[in-house]
Amino acid sequence: MNDNFSDAEDQVAVNLASRSYAIEIKPGLLSRLSERLDRFVSDEHVILVTDDNVAELYLESVVSQVSEIAQRVDVICVKPGEESKSISVCDELWQKMVDFNTDRQSVVIALGGGVVGDLAGFLAASFARGIRFIQIPTTLLAQVDSSVGGKVGVNLPSAKNMVGAFWQPEVVLIDPLVLETLDEANFRAGLAEVIKYGLIMDVDFFASLEASVDQIGRREPDSLTKCIARCCQCKAAIVEEDERETSGRRAILNYGHTYGHAIEAVFGYGRFLHGEAIAIGMTCAARLARDLGMVQDSFVERQTELFRKMKLPVKCPTERHDELIASMKHDKKVARGKLKLILPVGVGEVVVLAAPDDQRILDSLKN
Amino acid sequence: MNDNFSDAEDQVAVNLASRSYAIEIKPGLLSRLSERLDRFVSDEHVILVTDDNVAELYLESVVSQVSEIAQRVDVICVKPGEESKSISVCDELWQKMVDFNTDRQSVVIALGGGVVGDLAGFLAASFARGIRFIQIPTTLLAQVDSSVGGKVGVNLPSAKNMVGAFWQPEVVLIDPLVLETLDEANFRAGLAEVIKYGLIMDVDFFASLEASVDQIGRREPDSLTKCIARCCQCKAAIVEEDERETSGRRAILNYGHTYGHAIEAVFGYGRFLHGEAIAIGMTCAARLARDLGMVQDSFVERQTELFRKMKLPVKCPTERHDELIASMKHDKKVARGKLKLILPVGVGEVVVLAAPDDQRILDSLKN
Repeated sequence: MNDNFSDAEDQVAVNLASRSYAIEIKPGLLSRLSERLDRFVSDEHVILVTDDNVAELYLESVVSQVSEIAQRVDVICVKPGEESKSISVCDELWQKMVDFNTDRQSVVIALGGGVVGDLAGFLAASFARGIRFIQIPTTLLAQVDSSVGGKVGVNLPSAKNMVGAFWQPEVVLIDPLVLETLDEANFRAGLAEVIKYGLIMDVDFFASLEASVDQIGRREPDSLTKCIARCCQCKAAIVEEDERETSGRRAILNYGHTYGHAIEAVFGYGRFLHGEAIAIGMTCAARLARDLGMVQDSFVERQTELFRKMKLPVKCPTERHDELIASMKHDKKVARGKLKLILPVGVGEVVVLAAPDDQRILDSLKN
Repeated sequence: MNDNFSDAEDQVAVNLASRSYAIEIKPGLLSRLSERLDRFVSDEHVILVTDDNVAELYLESVVSQVSEIAQRVDVICVKPGEESKSISVCDELWQKMVDFNTDRQSVVIALGGGVVGDLAGFLAASFARGIRFIQIPTTLLAQVDSSVGGKVGVNLPSAKNMVGAFWQPEVVLIDPLVLETLDEANFRAGLAEVIKYGLIMDVDFFASLEASVDQIGRREPDSLTKCIARCCQCKAAIVEEDERETSGRRAILNYGHTYGHAIEAVFGYGRFLHGEAIAIGMTCAARLARDLGMVQDSFVERQTELFRKMKLPVKCPTERHDELIASMKHDKKVARGKLKLILPVGVGEVVVLAAPDDQRILDSLKN
């Protein structure tokens, strides 16, 4: 655990040499945007990327605040949902950016969840070979995971996040109060990533989640703010060690994700929310670890119990298991044709292992 | 001028910290590929990207040599020409890379001219958020310019190279003998970029080109090797100073390019070769500099004379000048809505200037 969260300033630092930035976490921040953004977009051309759902709630206020300081604000509004993370949507939006006279000094702001952040980030990374980029995540999943660390990109029909870049934002602005308007399913799905941090690196955090299921479920701002800050600290620590996922350290963030991505790809992006798919994925991974003798049954039970309390799914669909295995083998964590998996050895610790034979993976899909 | 060309080793070093690499320049290198590539692709999965024209000449030999050392070689062959540098081609090829089970350890090799290098480089930069990449340029333009420095990308219908990345190769392997099979028009077009280095930063090199028009025109291997090495030294020196085109230094490489890109975009990629378009562009830029009192008429004449001797076009099309101006304003060198131009102040020196009013630019288009 790094300890760079300062209560006084509500900031987590992400230290990446010339690409360093701050994550600011504060209830009410979205109503005081112009003072927070002033350093970054003063007199600049801003392209604000959002989706229809978020636009309905926040676009007017955000555009009005950004307009106070920017030279000009152009808005790109996409359809909500994973389908917007596609090459065809990028193709349309790159052209739109040309039409907006976007240049290398322009700044892209992502206002939305993981889809908006990943898409807007890839547009920023690839337009004119890279322009500046700011994240204002509005879902729990985006606040604790996807908005931090610079992974941006879009999906191919057969492979999630397969086209993209590492492109760090200039700042991440998080307002936990926006979670009040998040629908229950997406809020719960975000909790899957929250719990993941406990499982992969922070047993105390995991225990504190077990102890505060009710407060979190009621979305108490204090509990959420602490929760988000802790997750961002965890993520920052890992990203600082391994920005481009080369040393292997960053791979631990993908606990449950090889399974989860395959579940999303085979059953269609949309049937499961990402967080739901990875809750199922972590459950499968835990079973596999148990079958391999790496953890006891009690670990699987403890993990499953918290998912259930947080109302997350833990059952893998019972059909198309061969397709799931094939899809897992297209995962980006495949190295030299050999699939690797992140598997637990206890609460707060995971390891990266070469996958065992297909039969064992098939077994782990069975509830 | 940096002086990091060693005759003994036929290498130019590009020093970019963790992204440093060598440019190897040697007649006959393409016949001894396996020893040159051994360090980079030993037992790796290779995706070899080329086009139909280059494939006919070199594919069999290259695949056979790479296969000796790689674990597996998959070939992607695109249609020759600028049309292949498009999002729709990328979309198809990203999917092909998934089908080839490409993973983060795979290596992309670009065997071809600027189109193949830019396209293959962008595929490498964006697939799985970035995989390794090697350049084997087979045109003069690619050998002296586009294969060195990490600019990769594709075109939008209305803006050249607008989607891309800075993605450095692991090594650039240049065999001047392959230029024997290059068609005359493309060979001449490449000379436009060669002459450009003299104009922007090396008056001695410019004079030596004036003195060796015939040897170069006959493609004498010795002359070409020296020429290519000198250009690569120039390019390496600039890229080392300004890898991501942030300080402004790298912008000087774009002498003639703002005009040239507009000519290509307005008259259709394909009517003019890139080198032809920038020869016309440098001629326009020289006229503008003269009109602004930055150079004498004699400069324009000296530059034009060498272009003519090298059989490069210097006349701008006489129609659609308003569209050319509009297209120039979409250029990536636009900053905060203000177009910048690279203009000469003498042979061997250029400056970056805010563009004057449209009328002056219009005047500079007139032959």
